[in-house]
Amino acid sequence: MAVRVAVNGMGVIGKRVAHAVKLQDDMKLVAISTRSPSPTLKTILEPKGPLYGTHLYACSQESLENMKKAGMIVNGTLEDLLSKGEVDVVVDCTPKKVGAENKKIYEKYGVRAIFQGGEKSGVGTMTFNSFVNYDEAYKHKYIRVPSCNTTSLVRTLYTLSKITDIEEVDVAIVRRANDPPEDEEALCNSIEPTMEVPSHHGPDVQTVLPYLDIKTMSVKVPTTLAHVHIVHCEVKRLPKSEEIRDLFIKTPRITVLKASDGYTSTAKVIERYRDLLRPRYDMPEVVVWEETINTREDDVFWAHMVHQESIVIPENIDCIRAMFQLETNKEKSISKTDRSLGI
Amino acid sequence: MAVRVAVNGMGVIGKRVAHAVKLQDDMKLVAISTRSPSPTLKTILEPKGPLYGTHLYACSQESLENMKKAGMIVNGTLEDLLSKGEVDVVVDCTPKKVGAENKKIYEKYGVRAIFQGGEKSGVGTMTFNSFVNYDEAYKHKYIRVPSCNTTSLVRTLYTLSKITDIEEVDVAIVRRANDPPEDEEALCNSIEPTMEVPSHHGPDVQTVLPYLDIKTMSVKVPTTLAHVHIVHCEVKRLPKSEEIRDLFIKTPRITVLKASDGYTSTAKVIERYRDLLRPRYDMPEVVVWEETINTREDDVFWAHMVHQESIVIPENIDCIRAMFQLETNKEKSISKTDRSLGI
Repeated sequence: MAVRVAVNGMGVIGKRVAHAVKLQDDMKLVAISTRSPSPTLKTILEPKGPLYGTHLYACSQESLENMKKAGMIVNGTLEDLLSKGEVDVVVDCTPKKVGAENKKIYEKYGVRAIFQGGEKSGVGTMTFNSFVNYDEAYKHKYIRVPSCNTTSLVRTLYTLSKITDIEEVDVAIVRRANDPPEDEEALCNSIEPTMEVPSHHGPDVQTVLPYLDIKTMSVKVPTTLAHVHIVHCEVKRLPKSEEIRDLFIKTPRITVLKASDGYTSTAKVIERYRDLLRPRYDMPEVVVWEETINTREDDVFWAHMVHQESIVIPENIDCIRAMFQLETNKEKSISKTDRSLGI
Repeated sequence: MAVRVAVNGMGVIGKRVAHAVKLQDDMKLVAISTRSPSPTLKTILEPKGPLYGTHLYACSQESLENMKKAGMIVNGTLEDLLSKGEVDVVVDCTPKKVGAENKKIYEKYGVRAIFQGGEKSGVGTMTFNSFVNYDEAYKHKYIRVPSCNTTSLVRTLYTLSKITDIEEVDVAIVRRANDPPEDEEALCNSIEPTMEVPSHHGPDVQTVLPYLDIKTMSVKVPTTLAHVHIVHCEVKRLPKSEEIRDLFIKTPRITVLKASDGYTSTAKVIERYRDLLRPRYDMPEVVVWEETINTREDDVFWAHMVHQESIVIPENIDCIRAMFQLETNKEKSISKTDRSLGI
């Protein structure tokens, strides 16, 4: 029987997870729940919107009143929904720290939950990555899918670790100031170093790859399309650049593009996914620039690009599948998810 | 029989026109032609790309060599294609001034052509707008579809002129610095007034609405999503704001959105079209912000937004239909085109 999924929170991640769940044949989107009648919420529920016909719930009594006042058809609160016993798992995509608060509700009604990277790793009993620990997920009721930056690093570094031992990793993370739809409070014509040094991204990668010696620092720049990571690894045995490139090419959810083919920047790469008519131009793949893959002495270098809005979407789908053992082979789940999302 | 269309030039406009032609049941995309093996060209012809399987031609002998060198499968030059007599009309979407050069080729092979707004109005014997002069197009072999800015002004002003006489129009055009895929030579953290005063946009509107007294000026700002026009009309009889709003709402290809619904900026509006999963988030509609529609003394004001990449696409489709009298009723053509594009 299809796993019954509710998605709580209809922001950048939640609306995409809900749509992705709808595209699976082994899970069913029972309902969505959210806080306020945002323009995005109204649009996705329109007749031409991707979630038209989905049952809508409010995350609280206050939200329920607000949404009704705004003319939305709301079926009750999230607790009303969960008390019916028709949901197996909630994917919680609410803002940072709200997920941890919500956990009490999920526990109260005995439903499993998947949290996002904005929450501290302790919110779940494991931090999930499709490539690394898919097989462990079925043992856990509360799982966290790490952030976009962490996911991209786990994906590439775990792949590299298949052909060499990584002694140490240094990453400079160049972060987008804001997501494309945001028009408030964005950094403008300035570069803002994150004062947390090393940044939390390294320890977050270690929640999935605990043996990895990794240090990260980050700066924020005035762009919205994507993050870029500048990666430097010290390794035990130096592979050839071509070997790393070929390994990346054959790994799902890693795409290698060449500047010499015209992919000189995040703008050019995003245009590729617009040209492929991907919904919302989503790019859940990590894109590595081929020319930046280089090796010297005991060092491996590359730069990759992270589409912060969509990279974690397939991970959430695999996580549901792993949690309920809908598919026990991780490669099969990855490939099924990717096909459904046109990756 | 379906009209046989070739599209020459695969830039921002050409790739969209070609895709739009493919979506019509009364025209057939025979081939595309272009100059160089750009990343966009390769992407759209990939198995997952929207023009997969389309015959590719090169705009010159030199281009042919270049594209073959880049591994593209090219069927010959544009002249080879036209000499076969299998094309009824070329939609020329090549860069500014190249279209005028190409006209000689179209004349040589006796094919009709539609040019874009980058060309001077003399390139054709009429400048086309679906709302204004659809019925005239069948008399012309060479027609120009005006630019994005002009199209948006013609669409809104012609609509307003149905309920009042417009005495004079002043428009401040706030232009995007570059299209989203461009990563070269963009204005950065600066505002650049166009030194041509009044700007060419006013006279260009007059190629479609010759009786209109309109003056425009423009500045360029560092954004890529859209242009914004600040419109001020002096009118003979002052309509109520609500009357103008309702007129805009019921007019095809004009959409009225409210800042109070969350549509506070171009970023928020574009997100709506991403959420609707529109291909490439295209928004051929002019979006007018409802709160900006205002009237005072003998003045009408509003601000609208122009998606420079897609607003002219439905106009090109209607223009083909009008030119070959595939549909003699303009409302029917507009509605058929809009349905095919999900507008």
